[in-house]
Amino acid sequence: MKLATVRINGSSTAAVALPNGDYLPLEAPDLSALLRSEGWQEKAAALAAGAGTGSRVVSAADAEVLNPLPHPNKVICCGLNYSDHILEMGRELPSFPTLFAKFADTLTGPFADLEITASESVDWEAEVAVVVGSRLSRADAAEAAAGIAGYTAANDISMRDWQNRTLQWFQGKAFDSSTPLGPVLVTADELDPEAGVEVSCYLNGERMQHGNTSTLVFSAATLLSYISTFTVLRPGDIVLTGTPGGVGMGMKPPRYLSDGDVLTTEVGGIGRLENRIRATVTA
Amino acid sequence: MKLATVRINGSSTAAVALPNGDYLPLEAPDLSALLRSEGWQEKAAALAAGAGTGSRVVSAADAEVLNPLPHPNKVICCGLNYSDHILEMGRELPSFPTLFAKFADTLTGPFADLEITASESVDWEAEVAVVVGSRLSRADAAEAAAGIAGYTAANDISMRDWQNRTLQWFQGKAFDSSTPLGPVLVTADELDPEAGVEVSCYLNGERMQHGNTSTLVFSAATLLSYISTFTVLRPGDIVLTGTPGGVGMGMKPPRYLSDGDVLTTEVGGIGRLENRIRATVTA
Repeated sequence: MKLATVRINGSSTAAVALPNGDYLPLEAPDLSALLRSEGWQEKAAALAAGAGTGSRVVSAADAEVLNPLPHPNKVICCGLNYSDHILEMGRELPSFPTLFAKFADTLTGPFADLEITASESVDWEAEVAVVVGSRLSRADAAEAAAGIAGYTAANDISMRDWQNRTLQWFQGKAFDSSTPLGPVLVTADELDPEAGVEVSCYLNGERMQHGNTSTLVFSAATLLSYISTFTVLRPGDIVLTGTPGGVGMGMKPPRYLSDGDVLTTEVGGIGRLENRIRATVTA
Repeated sequence: MKLATVRINGSSTAAVALPNGDYLPLEAPDLSALLRSEGWQEKAAALAAGAGTGSRVVSAADAEVLNPLPHPNKVICCGLNYSDHILEMGRELPSFPTLFAKFADTLTGPFADLEITASESVDWEAEVAVVVGSRLSRADAAEAAAGIAGYTAANDISMRDWQNRTLQWFQGKAFDSSTPLGPVLVTADELDPEAGVEVSCYLNGERMQHGNTSTLVFSAATLLSYISTFTVLRPGDIVLTGTPGGVGMGMKPPRYLSDGDVLTTEVGGIGRLENRIRATVTA
């Protein structure tokens, strides 16, 4: 099942996203609220099973796709997680995940313009994001796996100048409305990143990144279990699972985003984010 | 004026903390809620001015002091900020603040026990925390200074083993209920860290850390202005301003907290946190 947050007649609502592109609205303003409600899976599945019976279907033309999860309590990112990229860089595989935090304000819609005002080296990082479905505290891997609501796509847009000002990456990863998310949440029963999901990033149509989640050092369930050792995870929390090789910072010379560029983030089985850069800083 | 969050008859409430130790309850469940309400300063000041007229005074014996700010949207910490400590370590003063994020779940009460379950190198970091009073977005230093609600004390308890597993400190700083905060918020008109506030940390009564905020490389207002360049700050958000020399990791050999230890964090003009360590991991 695919779920989305869409704006219909000026109001935000959670919805089932149908294969033909239409939507079935659910009784929650967004997926953050839906995932915190009791029995949302059964209600959404029942609604989807009865699709086509009539008036509740909203056509794609009447719906604007929004950030699916506007109100997570926690957004945690894992760096250095694609083993093929780590090995091609001549590094050893890590024993522990490299983690950093984002605030909910960093998130934006799957088709939002990205307004850049204070950075001269804006880079891309296409990622699969795992969305928490249950409260997880000191969960083992099996419990963590069962606590995954599903997956969505993200691009962890990184201001490399700010990221590299100090040893801590946070400030280069924390710009408001810099991380597009969506367009849908695919429930965990329909997607298995451990079996392999393709992750790609395109700049003005040219493929810059390409990887497969089967090469992740730390799987989604492993990350949730590890994180839950020190902090509780709750429905709607988000963990970004890392990015494959091909970021702009690694090119010779480095290549960064400019005003007017179109960035496309593609995750197999989930879909595409498409974001235009609006930069008022010139490099 | 000093403000606190206290539990009275089983309910949490914001309150004016009177010089004699008694409390005047305010109409908000905690200081996070109070700071988001309109005109809180005038209401609290009027209440304090009329103190002693009778029945609303709650004696210290009937109030339990809680974490003053249980619901910040953002908690951001600055590392490496005391110039005397940086210089004594032979390092150059930084051009940019080193920042990392915490989640609200890391916070705990000023006299709470600290339950340690998964770390063998638990260290102390006494700090002044600045509390945001206004919405700040791309604020200059003057606007940021005017947007400070006040100051409180914190101890950024750090799991050094987890902190040093990777290059990013986050996971060693993100343990739930590991950062005691309080006991009061002192409003900005009554405390001036730029003029100098003493910060000390004691382990079982022995002073381990001592510094003065007059030596901060980045002042409270400078930090808020800098952070507001990339993310909006709102009333109740918290920025920890760094810790002076004397942490356990820097000792030879390193010294860490053990079960039963009592940690006292003292900030001049604010007061003391006192926290007992409850460790179920043996080093």
